Amino acid sequence: MLGNFTFHNPTKLYFGENSLENLSKELDKYGKNVMLVYGGGSIRKNGIYDSVIAELNKADKQVVELSGVMPNPTIEKVMEGVTLARKENIDFILAVGGGSVCDYCKAVAGSVYCEHDPWEYYFNNWGEMTCRWIPVGCVLTMAGTGSEMDSCSVISKHSENRKKFYYFRNPDFSILNPVYTYTVPMYHTVAGVYDIMSHILEQYLSGTDDNTTDYIAEGLMRSLIVSSRKVLGNQEDYEARSNIMWTATWALNGLLSCGKPTDWMVHMLGQAVAAYTDATHGHTLSAVSGAYYRLLIDRSEDAVMKFRRLATVVWNIVPAGKTDKEIALEGLERMEDWMRELGLAMNITDCGANLSQLEGIADACPINESGYVVLTREDVIDVLRQSL
Amino acid sequence: MLGNFTFHNPTKLYFGENSLENLSKELDKYGKNVMLVYGGGSIRKNGIYDSVIAELNKADKQVVELSGVMPNPTIEKVMEGVTLARKENIDFILAVGGGSVCDYCKAVAGSVYCEHDPWEYYFNNWGEMTCRWIPVGCVLTMAGTGSEMDSCSVISKHSENRKKFYYFRNPDFSILNPVYTYTVPMYHTVAGVYDIMSHILEQYLSGTDDNTTDYIAEGLMRSLIVSSRKVLGNQEDYEARSNIMWTATWALNGLLSCGKPTDWMVHMLGQAVAAYTDATHGHTLSAVSGAYYRLLIDRSEDAVMKFRRLATVVWNIVPAGKTDKEIALEGLERMEDWMRELGLAMNITDCGANLSQLEGIADACPINESGYVVLTREDVIDVLRQSL
Repeated sequence: MLGNFTFHNPTKLYFGENSLENLSKELDKYGKNVMLVYGGGSIRKNGIYDSVIAELNKADKQVVELSGVMPNPTIEKVMEGVTLARKENIDFILAVGGGSVCDYCKAVAGSVYCEHDPWEYYFNNWGEMTCRWIPVGCVLTMAGTGSEMDSCSVISKHSENRKKFYYFRNPDFSILNPVYTYTVPMYHTVAGVYDIMSHILEQYLSGTDDNTTDYIAEGLMRSLIVSSRKVLGNQEDYEARSNIMWTATWALNGLLSCGKPTDWMVHMLGQAVAAYTDATHGHTLSAVSGAYYRLLIDRSEDAVMKFRRLATVVWNIVPAGKTDKEIALEGLERMEDWMRELGLAMNITDCGANLSQLEGIADACPINESGYVVLTREDVIDVLRQSL
Repeated sequence: MLGNFTFHNPTKLYFGENSLENLSKELDKYGKNVMLVYGGGSIRKNGIYDSVIAELNKADKQVVELSGVMPNPTIEKVMEGVTLARKENIDFILAVGGGSVCDYCKAVAGSVYCEHDPWEYYFNNWGEMTCRWIPVGCVLTMAGTGSEMDSCSVISKHSENRKKFYYFRNPDFSILNPVYTYTVPMYHTVAGVYDIMSHILEQYLSGTDDNTTDYIAEGLMRSLIVSSRKVLGNQEDYEARSNIMWTATWALNGLLSCGKPTDWMVHMLGQAVAAYTDATHGHTLSAVSGAYYRLLIDRSEDAVMKFRRLATVVWNIVPAGKTDKEIALEGLERMEDWMRELGLAMNITDCGANLSQLEGIADACPINESGYVVLTREDVIDVLRQSL
């Protein structure tokens, strides 16, 4: 059954090769002062910057730029954006980049009119956007986080070795052009693919009821596997790039958690690893998945049955003559074959972690209690050790 | 690949056993004069009316009632609502009922401030809500049409033997309580189930590209088949009722047509039959499906391949040793077994149609051109004759 829930996702999405041409029309709805935010400058090389500036000019906007948003954006960088937005009296924030840039802009948009320290305030008032919001638009250049159609932001603070997860507010609109993802290097493309897969799995691998949500999740996973293999063979496969981009959006916009419990421990583990190593998000997730999922299958009969279903529906495992646990594990092995095929990090050593950091990583890893197994601190250390 | 599209669905949904308790809070956002709209009065028997009135009182609203909205609402009835809403200076329209009541309220909401004849005006200005809109909320009591999260209305005019399809605007919010569907008679429950299945199929059975949208459609169909069989055995199976209700919403809220062509000929045929017989919508769809789908498989290789995929993924047909066409047809037969199991009308005679009406029904049937085969008038007559 589906439990009680609220679903509300008002972000307007423009999808396709020509979707940027909607930008100036959308911008007409907002004030004159626009803060244009991007990362390390790759958008200047691939031409996206020029196309965006042309649309901003068409809409007759006063543009202030803020660049250098890093892959795991820090609270210090957020405060730089807040200061600039206050000084320039910004009416609208335009993110041009991947999930980090979009996350970053949401954090700035919710903090400009917030009198408190956002790092503490929004964590203590989770999911409540009580301060005035500056509207945000997103031109997406990388598929993975789903940040273009959700309210989440992940913000880091190096001095505390912490990554924190926030709910701010959804972008008002997002522009999704699959062509913009052609130039994403394969290392980051596959990281995005596994981030998407992990978003789906962390919502799918929990609960025992029959619910529509899980069937939708299975459809998205089946699509993602097909398209991820195609993009490996051709960086510029529009079919594959468009499907991956769209799957990413629906993997984390609220739909896949409707009416069911979720797990999210792979993200907790991966983010703790990233807080110590600054490794790419998707690779930290793949690095800890195998050990964590084997623990679930070893400890929980409910987990066995859900992994069994995943194995047959998504990984095409033939069940005849096998125990439920054998089927579950065979599905997991098939998934790990696919992960290796993509070139994902299969252990945290490859992410830059080492034995001496395990205690610290465990300290940085919150424990969720809604999955099949509630981990102890010893379990966390154990999963990390097996992931070395 | 996914073609270009825009997705924007801002309706807020409250789902679950206690979802009605959100009504008064939502109503606080709108003006004092509420028009409460319902159908034949079943909501007075099952207690939903009293619960809704309690929420309206809690929100301190001035309530004007309009009842008697029929299963296929007429333009004459729409104009009755328009006149009443103008006279009472209505600020908000609350639909309590199934898809027909919700469709009706959208038509009224878009017509109160429209100076033209809405029957003609909105058909000639399809998809453009240029007049001032009265906000609409929907308390859903039947699953099927998806009207709770889309902008569509189907309105009839008996004097012209026509049903017309309109786009107005989405409800501002909808309240989905699966328990409210317990008392829907099985004849109407299965009609709703097939309406949902047809919504999914009419978007799925078109195009040749690999796209994420079709994988989501497959997930929804697999869920619907499981839950429809459960509800046959137990009218009050919450798990089944909740899944059917949620599947209905996502079958027709825009997601399943993202980036791909759609067909919709079963709806065109079924609505033409209903214009002559006033038969229940879902049963008119099941009555014409078999003959139409066989025509597609006979005429189009692309259709064969898509029906083949449907057969293996959704109907669990084992492909080994069979031609593509055999697999496609075996899937269709498996689907027809399921339709008979549900007790759906399998021909238009059961819907009250007869041979002498075929020419008239064909006149009332628009031809869409985006499916695998573009029907001629002779094809329409032929499909109807084989559906007798």
